[in-house]
Amino acid sequence: MGNSLGKLFTITSFGESHGRCVGIIIDGCPAGLPITEEDIQREVDRRKPEVSISATERVEEDKVEILSGIFNGMTTGAPVCLLIWNKDVDSSEYEKMRFILRPGHADYTAFMKYGGFNDFRGGGRFSGRITATFVMAGAIAKKLLSLIDIEVLAHTVEIGGIKAEPMGFDEIKRNVDKNPLKCADLKAAEGMARAIEKAKEDDDSVGGIIEGIALNLPVGLGEPAFNTLDGELARALFAIPAVKGVEFGSGFLAAKKRGSENNDPFTIRNGRIVTVTNNAGGILGGLSNGMPIVVRVAIKPTASIAKEQGTVDIKNMKSTSLVVKGRHDICIVPRAVAVVESMMAVTLSDFAMRAGLIPRVIK
Amino acid sequence: MGNSLGKLFTITSFGESHGRCVGIIIDGCPAGLPITEEDIQREVDRRKPEVSISATERVEEDKVEILSGIFNGMTTGAPVCLLIWNKDVDSSEYEKMRFILRPGHADYTAFMKYGGFNDFRGGGRFSGRITATFVMAGAIAKKLLSLIDIEVLAHTVEIGGIKAEPMGFDEIKRNVDKNPLKCADLKAAEGMARAIEKAKEDDDSVGGIIEGIALNLPVGLGEPAFNTLDGELARALFAIPAVKGVEFGSGFLAAKKRGSENNDPFTIRNGRIVTVTNNAGGILGGLSNGMPIVVRVAIKPTASIAKEQGTVDIKNMKSTSLVVKGRHDICIVPRAVAVVESMMAVTLSDFAMRAGLIPRVIK
Amino acid sequence: MGNSLGKLFTITSFGESHGRCVGIIIDGCPAGLPITEEDIQREVDRRKPEVSISATERVEEDKVEILSGIFNGMTTGAPVCLLIWNKDVDSSEYEKMRFILRPGHADYTAFMKYGGFNDFRGGGRFSGRITATFVMAGAIAKKLLSLIDIEVLAHTVEIGGIKAEPMGFDEIKRNVDKNPLKCADLKAAEGMARAIEKAKEDDDSVGGIIEGIALNLPVGLGEPAFNTLDGELARALFAIPAVKGVEFGSGFLAAKKRGSENNDPFTIRNGRIVTVTNNAGGILGGLSNGMPIVVRVAIKPTASIAKEQGTVDIKNMKSTSLVVKGRHDICIVPRAVAVVESMMAVTLSDFAMRAGLIPRVIK
Amino acid sequence: MGNSLGKLFTITSFGESHGRCVGIIIDGCPAGLPITEEDIQREVDRRKPEVSISATERVEEDKVEILSGIFNGMTTGAPVCLLIWNKDVDSSEYEKMRFILRPGHADYTAFMKYGGFNDFRGGGRFSGRITATFVMAGAIAKKLLSLIDIEVLAHTVEIGGIKAEPMGFDEIKRNVDKNPLKCADLKAAEGMARAIEKAKEDDDSVGGIIEGIALNLPVGLGEPAFNTLDGELARALFAIPAVKGVEFGSGFLAAKKRGSENNDPFTIRNGRIVTVTNNAGGILGGLSNGMPIVVRVAIKPTASIAKEQGTVDIKNMKSTSLVVKGRHDICIVPRAVAVVESMMAVTLSDFAMRAGLIPRVIK
Repeated sequence: MGNSLGKLFTITSFGESHGRCVGIIIDGCPAGLPITEEDIQREVDRRKPEVSISATERVEEDKVEILSGIFNGMTTGAPVCLLIWNKDVDSSEYEKMRFILRPGHADYTAFMKYGGFNDFRGGGRFSGRITATFVMAGAIAKKLLSLIDIEVLAHTVEIGGIKAEPMGFDEIKRNVDKNPLKCADLKAAEGMARAIEKAKEDDDSVGGIIEGIALNLPVGLGEPAFNTLDGELARALFAIPAVKGVEFGSGFLAAKKRGSENNDPFTIRNGRIVTVTNNAGGILGGLSNGMPIVVRVAIKPTASIAKEQGTVDIKNMKSTSLVVKGRHDICIVPRAVAVVESMMAVTLSDFAMRAGLIPRVIK
Repeated sequence: MGNSLGKLFTITSFGESHGRCVGIIIDGCPAGLPITEEDIQREVDRRKPEVSISATERVEEDKVEILSGIFNGMTTGAPVCLLIWNKDVDSSEYEKMRFILRPGHADYTAFMKYGGFNDFRGGGRFSGRITATFVMAGAIAKKLLSLIDIEVLAHTVEIGGIKAEPMGFDEIKRNVDKNPLKCADLKAAEGMARAIEKAKEDDDSVGGIIEGIALNLPVGLGEPAFNTLDGELARALFAIPAVKGVEFGSGFLAAKKRGSENNDPFTIRNGRIVTVTNNAGGILGGLSNGMPIVVRVAIKPTASIAKEQGTVDIKNMKSTSLVVKGRHDICIVPRAVAVVESMMAVTLSDFAMRAGLIPRVIK
Repeated sequence: MGNSLGKLFTITSFGESHGRCVGIIIDGCPAGLPITEEDIQREVDRRKPEVSISATERVEEDKVEILSGIFNGMTTGAPVCLLIWNKDVDSSEYEKMRFILRPGHADYTAFMKYGGFNDFRGGGRFSGRITATFVMAGAIAKKLLSLIDIEVLAHTVEIGGIKAEPMGFDEIKRNVDKNPLKCADLKAAEGMARAIEKAKEDDDSVGGIIEGIALNLPVGLGEPAFNTLDGELARALFAIPAVKGVEFGSGFLAAKKRGSENNDPFTIRNGRIVTVTNNAGGILGGLSNGMPIVVRVAIKPTASIAKEQGTVDIKNMKSTSLVVKGRHDICIVPRAVAVVESMMAVTLSDFAMRAGLIPRVIK
Repeated sequence: MGNSLGKLFTITSFGESHGRCVGIIIDGCPAGLPITEEDIQREVDRRKPEVSISATERVEEDKVEILSGIFNGMTTGAPVCLLIWNKDVDSSEYEKMRFILRPGHADYTAFMKYGGFNDFRGGGRFSGRITATFVMAGAIAKKLLSLIDIEVLAHTVEIGGIKAEPMGFDEIKRNVDKNPLKCADLKAAEGMARAIEKAKEDDDSVGGIIEGIALNLPVGLGEPAFNTLDGELARALFAIPAVKGVEFGSGFLAAKKRGSENNDPFTIRNGRIVTVTNNAGGILGGLSNGMPIVVRVAIKPTASIAKEQGTVDIKNMKSTSLVVKGRHDICIVPRAVAVVESMMAVTLSDFAMRAGLIPRVIK
């Protein structure tokens, strides 16, 4: 239970890191949306590890296959099943280390919850690999949102303590996919790359912050009291492994501000009501206010490190130590950028459908 | 839609700030739980404004009534309806200012979403008053959790930029309800009181940070991929008006750390696996790991301020300015402490039931 | 759990037969729908017992109150809470007979499920009185459906073995509320009245069949595979106590037919595709086909009878016998007619919203 | 939307008749349940067409594959994905007849709902083939229920007007899988075979009735008011194409009975409360009463017949006629028996989990 998300645009994720495949069902996508495997592949490829910032030269060829719900290049209204077969899987290291709990991973919690029956290989269901299924769903959600002109983008704003300078949406869009760190501030990106390089030398890892943005939202998306736009976005974003915090607009900084500084005054621009500032991050009372949604997501440093760490052998209930071998990224922030976009797009699609903004048949 | 939360322990909130009442249905509460109106009243009273930190001497007598689901002092297994009749309501100011959008409030978004049909008086459904219904549900949830020894508490850790020193859980419990700011660090509380006083003099307001804690959780609560413990807690917390950020454990600070610093090594204590540190805030892979849940919630400064602000008259589509009169708090952080506890308790009750930890009949 | 129904137009029922009240929350009703207490009262009154067919001269004055969600006579988009305070309640007989299980009632199952904590007075949550809350929701649903010209009606087609002749929709509408049995065939109604009278003389009760009809549905309401229109209607109708069967169109008779008899040939009438016959009862593949929905609901004879019945004293675990005293109807079929309409209207409203046919704001 | 069923034990169906595959996700299955492809294959094979009662000699080799959620022969707690690749598919006839609406099928309703984008080949998502996915889920559900001794079985009780004699559960179990009609009354089965043979000669089809039975249920399964056991079973059963009616216990016959006949008196047997008769079909007040669940399901005659039928060409909006060619069964009742069992098992598994009767880890 717990592997479905969304009320009208509903995704259901399945598969394990070292099982046969990872996949996703999208149920509720309107009929008549043109979708090809290439559309989805393009988004999935954006999640690929960059050799330059990866600890090892892994080859992860994620080839998207459509299993159902699309006919003659169009969605049919039936559930769409998208799948990636797992290849290039070597589970031997995991078999050996099966009972040695990796700090910062779900090894312990999954073992306890599922009584040791969980597929532990490669982290199984708790692997970052599962986010490939989120990106497949996100590809469809983004296409759906584009019909009502909603655009979702994300970019790296901090890695290893190096912060990007704030910049305009157009500049972000232009720069983000052109550099391996998905950072629009190209100068800061250089510093981030150095921080990653340094961590690699130290057999360590670094975290960072991703900013997600949604543009052109109509006013009123969200369903308070409990299905608020911010709450549902946060829930979706916490599904990404390694996320430890989510804030909107001025976020935690708001706690230090006064009301007169933090309130966004309303004004009229081009006959439309807007706010002069956007400390609200585009959300008031759990509803979109027509300004850009701005959400920041804290990503912890990769839990897998080549440094020795103290831990426990759960089978023998003994203290021991561990050096994580195998393939892992020094910093997952750049790869998570596409995932943040996807989770936002999926959530917004559901809200747009709940608001009746997307017809059941696309014409 | 959107006014229900929880899968097995489900709450449904209703009512408006200046309507006849505010209320909540709790559906799925096991039978045989002893509950009195006094039990619930006690929690609701903890949300009362303290005269000392309030802008005005409002009298808000919130008297809890049980309408259904409790018989002979015990829950029956039927839906529990709890209600507070609204009294001491003066809507005249709201009628006058109906079309003048208050910055930082949901006036604009609600007007647009509901086509102007929303009950605007006192913020209607978007008033902080709605959180009284959350606290009623929380009172039952806390009692339910106490059966399996889970304890939930929250306390103020920052107001107006003044931070509390970290302290132990016992000290927090001892101090939190003894001071009007719900801050366990009594010295810091004095500074916070001064910050509030100063803001009041300036016709302004301040925000702050609340920390929520849950103790004695079993390992494995949470339902990933999408109903993670952190994600669901975050969603529930964002239902509290004024929340702009949620972080667990090291939270946004994790973004600046290295893996070797942020990972919590496992060790064995009293025959049980624990982590040496708790940067994870008690959650790994979306599941509780048996350590205390630690979540921090950023509360923006009260949107209602007596200072003049620029805004828009939506009826006449003209720029105008506004001074918010009427009753409001300079700082809502202390009042939100009970609400944070409640939303945590409600969420944890649902997960405990999903995990089969709470029987359908209490004996 | 289990007291909510519907995905976008969601109702949540609460209250007990002899508790303080019975009530319902309607969450998801669009803003701007004009609703008065009189509108709802009118439907609730249609569920009133007729003295002529009742076993006792009970006075059940069900006065509807609006607690929330309606402002200036219009829905606001917030959850609507409707309530009837219980009056004229005498629980003494129930207290005396508390542990004597009434055959055909939920006394035994409720006792076991809720460990004896259930409010047993008057059947508590399992009383037919709960259906008054369904009718309150139905009143709003019917008004909502009328916006898109959908009409729902129900009528008695069989009581005590006496069957009504088939007749046209207009005739049904004209006659149904004009006779106490809600039977459009006035001659058959006389026979039904005699059957009830005879059962009353014998200290016994009778059952019957209600036919529900929905007119002017668009083609395509329903969400297969699992949220089919027929399946969801059936689920909603089985929420009515005493319902033992639900069939659509030719129903159980279809089992005896050949395909060539049961298939409804398509043809074109007034430029629209229709079927020549309606054995499908308006549903093909779980979707409305534009023809009238025709559903028949089997109502068992009232379980409460003044005749002596063998049963068990659950406290002393002894066989005993029972004569049910107190107020009850000889035949509940006529009173259930308004309830069948209501459950149909609630279900259709949810589907209409899921299909995007009803805007979120009514203009 | 609408392709998921169940709250804790949740199934999500996908795939089309002539697409790449049909499949199902089971989310919420406890960890540690031993499951092999053979276990599931065995149930799927029970749904195979018998050559003797089929219109054509189709070869439908449905080979089950496990894609996820099972590791080392045990469920892991992760979502289980089960798949059957489609083979032996010839869509040419469907391409030719694309716009000629087959009476009794979902061609028209699906065309309208999905704007003509639906995969029409072989009925697409509306094909009986989809029920193979229900049976895969049912195989797991039945195994889960067996842990708490609940047994589900179904058998043919009527075909083409020929009724089986009532018989005991043991006799039903012994006989049902030994004859191609899944009818425990072997003499009646002969008559049914003749009725099918006769219909085949006439290029026609026949329907029938299936009885589903669940044994050894604990008292109290079901979640009224709206998630009643009967209501949820009915909803699940109406997901089976061709089902037009569902009744429990005395069902529609109850409408003709008196209360004194239809009430089931309670008595004590072996220290347990039971009812002397079972007119309730094992359900009182929407809750299981510990007696066998008995539900009857009306199956309409196969809509596909080789006889000429009047219909409409929806492309040209012209009346036309149609003879359905291709592979189809004269009577689908025997094949639907396994499907009825599966839908019952899936529903009961969900309720058993909601009642906390099945642990999250099987030991």
